[in-house]
Amino acid sequence: MARNTQVAADHNAPPITQILAQFVAHHPSRGWSDAVDHEAHRTFMNWLGCAVGAAHHEAADAALAAVNMLQPAAQASVLGRTEKVDMASAALINGITSHTFDFDDTHLKTIIHPAGPVASAVLAMAEHLGNSGREVIDALVIGIDVSCRVGNAMYPDHYDRGWHITGSTGTLGAAAACARLLKLDVQQTAMALGIAASQPIGMREQFGTMTKPFHPGGAARAGLMSALLASKGYTASPKALEAPRGMMQTVSTKNDWTEITGELGERFEISFNSYKPFACGIVIHPSIDACAQLRKQGVTPDQIDRIELKVHSLVLELTGKKEPQDGLQAKFSVYHGCAAGLTFGYAAEEEFSDEVVNRADMVALRRKVVATVDDSINEASADVTAVLLDGRRVHVFVEHAIGSLKNPMSDAQLEAKFQGMSDAILGAGQTSELINACWAMGNAANVKAVVALASPTRP
Amino acid sequence: MARNTQVAADHNAPPITQILAQFVAHHPSRGWSDAVDHEAHRTFMNWLGCAVGAAHHEAADAALAAVNMLQPAAQASVLGRTEKVDMASAALINGITSHTFDFDDTHLKTIIHPAGPVASAVLAMAEHLGNSGREVIDALVIGIDVSCRVGNAMYPDHYDRGWHITGSTGTLGAAAACARLLKLDVQQTAMALGIAASQPIGMREQFGTMTKPFHPGGAARAGLMSALLASKGYTASPKALEAPRGMMQTVSTKNDWTEITGELGERFEISFNSYKPFACGIVIHPSIDACAQLRKQGVTPDQIDRIELKVHSLVLELTGKKEPQDGLQAKFSVYHGCAAGLTFGYAAEEEFSDEVVNRADMVALRRKVVATVDDSINEASADVTAVLLDGRRVHVFVEHAIGSLKNPMSDAQLEAKFQGMSDAILGAGQTSELINACWAMGNAANVKAVVALASPTRP
Repeated sequence: MARNTQVAADHNAPPITQILAQFVAHHPSRGWSDAVDHEAHRTFMNWLGCAVGAAHHEAADAALAAVNMLQPAAQASVLGRTEKVDMASAALINGITSHTFDFDDTHLKTIIHPAGPVASAVLAMAEHLGNSGREVIDALVIGIDVSCRVGNAMYPDHYDRGWHITGSTGTLGAAAACARLLKLDVQQTAMALGIAASQPIGMREQFGTMTKPFHPGGAARAGLMSALLASKGYTASPKALEAPRGMMQTVSTKNDWTEITGELGERFEISFNSYKPFACGIVIHPSIDACAQLRKQGVTPDQIDRIELKVHSLVLELTGKKEPQDGLQAKFSVYHGCAAGLTFGYAAEEEFSDEVVNRADMVALRRKVVATVDDSINEASADVTAVLLDGRRVHVFVEHAIGSLKNPMSDAQLEAKFQGMSDAILGAGQTSELINACWAMGNAANVKAVVALASPTRP
Repeated sequence: MARNTQVAADHNAPPITQILAQFVAHHPSRGWSDAVDHEAHRTFMNWLGCAVGAAHHEAADAALAAVNMLQPAAQASVLGRTEKVDMASAALINGITSHTFDFDDTHLKTIIHPAGPVASAVLAMAEHLGNSGREVIDALVIGIDVSCRVGNAMYPDHYDRGWHITGSTGTLGAAAACARLLKLDVQQTAMALGIAASQPIGMREQFGTMTKPFHPGGAARAGLMSALLASKGYTASPKALEAPRGMMQTVSTKNDWTEITGELGERFEISFNSYKPFACGIVIHPSIDACAQLRKQGVTPDQIDRIELKVHSLVLELTGKKEPQDGLQAKFSVYHGCAAGLTFGYAAEEEFSDEVVNRADMVALRRKVVATVDDSINEASADVTAVLLDGRRVHVFVEHAIGSLKNPMSDAQLEAKFQGMSDAILGAGQTSELINACWAMGNAANVKAVVALASPTRP
């Protein structure tokens, strides 16, 4: 029955579902620059390292125990573990683990973590179906383009409203990528996107719980299933994304369609992907980076009288916890970040463990950090001066922290990050082989060989 | 980073997630009146008949083919078929089939079709785990209470915004019901609701496609998995429903919390469930009912000169198609509805088949229907006069059509509806046994015996 609604409908949207389906089905393989293709390999490797690293987190154990209640077929690998489950469940679990450390990639314009939903779906399906590495990289670039473009169109309203944009757009990216992998035609690809459009996943209220990483996992699973359903003739609205009562207008009042249609097939959103060097919120990164640079200049913790830290007010507002009691609290402590940077030169998951956080030397060192607000400093920068016991002052100013778009992690730094997560799970030798396999992914005849390296050979 | 949002947040919501978890975990078995318990059995039987009836619809075939790509374990039955799949996939497929004919139940206050998500999840899980019929009925009443109460709180804004409220609230109902079945404690039940809260499913743009019935199926699946995850220790926000960035405030600007807390455990929403006697939109029902009453009074199609139909303008606005060309169009034709009512005395899925719609006698009869608008007649009523070739006039006025809350289908009528859907699939003898098993569900020691009757014994 007709009724007025609070939401003004846009009845003149371009045929977004059809336009994206055309792109997904027909854009040529490797139809982009070498830089884009290299970024796809970096995205893949960074995602894989995060998934392997969190393989034995309690969230992974719980999710796997639940999935095992379904007695799944052994189709695809749980990364970093010896178990195999059906491809949809593998997409779910690998999506969960890849986001568990909050250490994965970020499309800064939308704060989407794009690899989780897309790569988790693609690799699980490709492992079972025996696709080539090139097909996986193609699907990854195209799937990420779909989710980030939909994100661009809806951001920020959609996010402000309460949606965890990684999961809500990730279902579409995963569906697009799996449709590509299955070589669906335009019509079936549109149906895959349409089925996925009814399944946006993720509320921001879940941040700080296991349901946050469930969002990319659930999105991966839902996208993979949407593509399978479409491949078997299941139907959806051909205007499921853009119609007045379709997904995008239902979950966002802002929808800038040109963000989807503009330069489609020419500009690739994966070009704007970034990778976290440190396993914590992005506002602490410049301070950690600055302290790591002090360490490189020879400053050691035992020389320190105090560390004078000047940052934007937002940094202390979000991460001003002076005396963190455990790892989770430490992720919201710029003081701990500085101590870790000076002590270790970096701050990965291990440096945010309860054990490290409560070490006497760490407690002592972070108490020597004197933070002051200076709003003339950008929130993405940090000004740090180490005042030494002998009276010397050593100053470092970080304008763009390592890992930002202006100062991206090098390939070698990504490898080191990968090793930091994977060595303990797979051993250093196999980790090194796996890194090489990641860089060569686009040439792999069959991804099964790559995936095999991501499971411990000795359980 | 802080930013103003367009949506005013309610920071003072009662602890809805916790309140519902307490109710789900601790409300006593059969803690309601005999009338409520009988309505639960009617809801279960009506849902089961719809699922069996659509077992071989092309949507079921497509969904099953996709699920079979996962090589599922044979844990639970696809109703009306011989195949078994894992319990989560059975929840999906049975949820799809039960809504495929648009012939299932309706909670009129919210237009939620409540059984689809809840019963599909509960029965699949119970079959695998071997629960009793009483446990299934308890879970059904409690799960439907959760989804309909959340629906009451958000309706109409949530629906107007574009959400297919059956799927978006159904995930919570299915999670609640499965949590109950698994005997989760309050804390784990809250986590199950919380995980489900991140997965609202369904956009109204999908109406008219297979993705419409996917919504209750997907909700059943997601709810079942949420309960399994919670049972293994997976966590979510304990305020996932009510928090400012939780599910309800994210997907609806209207949230009347008292709809959830008021008379919880005393008033049961399943009491307000209704069942469709006819397989079409509810506004045609009074006209079909009136013509069926003419038939009962001895009026036959060959006696008819014309049928004078007076209805509210809305009826012709929504269902004014004079010359439907196929079954789907006929569902929007009050003219076909009148012809079917007079010819058959009812209008189930078969009477909306392409074949029946194009029969010469049906085409001729519906051309004799002269419809006029009379807005003094309620949209839930119809005024019909058969003008016979001999000049006689036979008049019927239907104030409340059969199937409405004021004039509910009798148990015998529900049985006849069930037979109409099931006889062709299971045979009349087995259908009759299954009907008896449905009425005795609350006493069944193990639901496996009931479910066995819902699969054809001779494939």
